[in-house]
Amino acid sequence: MTFIDSLAAAWRQNNSLLCVGLDPDPAKFPAHLRGRDDAIFEFCAAIADATADLVCAFKPQIAYFAARRAEAQLEALIAHIHEKHPGIPVILDAKRGDIGSTAEQYAVEAFERFRADAVTINPYMGRDSVEPYLAYRDKGVILLCRTSNPGGSDLQFLDVGGEKLYERVARLVATEWNDNGQCALVVGATFPAEIARVRALVGDLPLLVPGIGAQGGDIEATVGAGKTGAGTGLMINSSRAILYAGKDEHFAAAARAAALETRDAINRFR
Amino acid sequence: MTFIDSLAAAWRQNNSLLCVGLDPDPAKFPAHLRGRDDAIFEFCAAIADATADLVCAFKPQIAYFAARRAEAQLEALIAHIHEKHPGIPVILDAKRGDIGSTAEQYAVEAFERFRADAVTINPYMGRDSVEPYLAYRDKGVILLCRTSNPGGSDLQFLDVGGEKLYERVARLVATEWNDNGQCALVVGATFPAEIARVRALVGDLPLLVPGIGAQGGDIEATVGAGKTGAGTGLMINSSRAILYAGKDEHFAAAARAAALETRDAINRFR
Repeated sequence: MTFIDSLAAAWRQNNSLLCVGLDPDPAKFPAHLRGRDDAIFEFCAAIADATADLVCAFKPQIAYFAARRAEAQLEALIAHIHEKHPGIPVILDAKRGDIGSTAEQYAVEAFERFRADAVTINPYMGRDSVEPYLAYRDKGVILLCRTSNPGGSDLQFLDVGGEKLYERVARLVATEWNDNGQCALVVGATFPAEIARVRALVGDLPLLVPGIGAQGGDIEATVGAGKTGAGTGLMINSSRAILYAGKDEHFAAAARAAALETRDAINRFR
Repeated sequence: MTFIDSLAAAWRQNNSLLCVGLDPDPAKFPAHLRGRDDAIFEFCAAIADATADLVCAFKPQIAYFAARRAEAQLEALIAHIHEKHPGIPVILDAKRGDIGSTAEQYAVEAFERFRADAVTINPYMGRDSVEPYLAYRDKGVILLCRTSNPGGSDLQFLDVGGEKLYERVARLVATEWNDNGQCALVVGATFPAEIARVRALVGDLPLLVPGIGAQGGDIEATVGAGKTGAGTGLMINSSRAILYAGKDEHFAAAARAAALETRDAINRFR
């Protein structure tokens, strides 16, 4: 099954547009996990097991693993999710971007080594830097468009011939890079008007929306601006607000409660 | 010593603007190395040992290691270069780019885990996505500006208020992001007129120039367009043409000969 089909199935089956971001920071782990060699795997797997029926996707952020030499735990985590929760797609949040021959190596990293179903990619280097990922025809390729951070405006908001750079990226991806229907876009929840603008430009293309929760994005505005006619089309990501909802040995139950609350808050506005 | 100071010292000491890119592809290794668990380390360390007096920097490309679960060999390689060839800076070519809290993790990966002296960064997410790297005050931060691949023009060549996007990036980095004098830019050798344009915009800021050799960039045009008044200011990268100059057990000597030839070809036009 392709990434896009898995995502659509998970939207339906779990009645959820929530994506849980797996950004493991051992300094925030409950005391009983700290110091264990496999703490990162154990923490993330427990979160995944506690929330898998409430989400449309999981999104591990590779930097949190790479900073701690924990690539093997990331491989084990994605394998665990595939085995225990088949049908829930895993997005590797890596934001790679390089020339074709190097992008081929990054595609091997994302899709063959880590076995992700989709990967986030930076569009700055243009179409041929994206093609090696698109060559994996069943995988998802999620391009940065309008990011949720303050500096996102430095380049993305520049006017390029009567539209903003992020709008050009949205149009390029939707009309030129998406031949095989495997693309999606990252659009931050901190800018609902721009989510609406992107939605108007790209039809039903899925949008990965970080920035609710710790980053302050508004759920009602995000859903209103980004949903498709079918009330889907969104992967609304929350990481810290779910991962660290609890601080003790009941952290997974606390994460489940936070995920349930967030999923239902999203659903109120679909 | 800061990255920028090390680079200046290596330009002088080795009379060289050549950067050797370490993009290890085991399928191209000499037969006697194939199948060895440490083949990637052995290959790259042999290249580094054979060329260290001819270069101003080494630039391992992390994708080639990550695709093969070879992060430990990359750590060992950089440690080897620091130990055997002190003073030659190591640029981790990673082209990372993410929001601040994630960028902090990538900075740990590049500077603390891998102990690189500089890292390549994608500017699409703006200033706050770059600040966590700049917080390491002695490290180099090398921003993508005009890349050497065909699709580089898709976004970088767009007109933004009377200048091209890559020109805006060059100006932003030179005038706003470089408070501490630790920045450099990536400008591909395939576009000499654009190297000249960037040089005119950024004063003596160092430029990392990929694209000679296998990618077809012209050395005379590159040096003429990019050198500073002092005849330096460039890290001209060659990877495949040096790494795979020889195919047998004498590969390191062949790489040395190719590096010497390239260094001297560059020097004829300084």
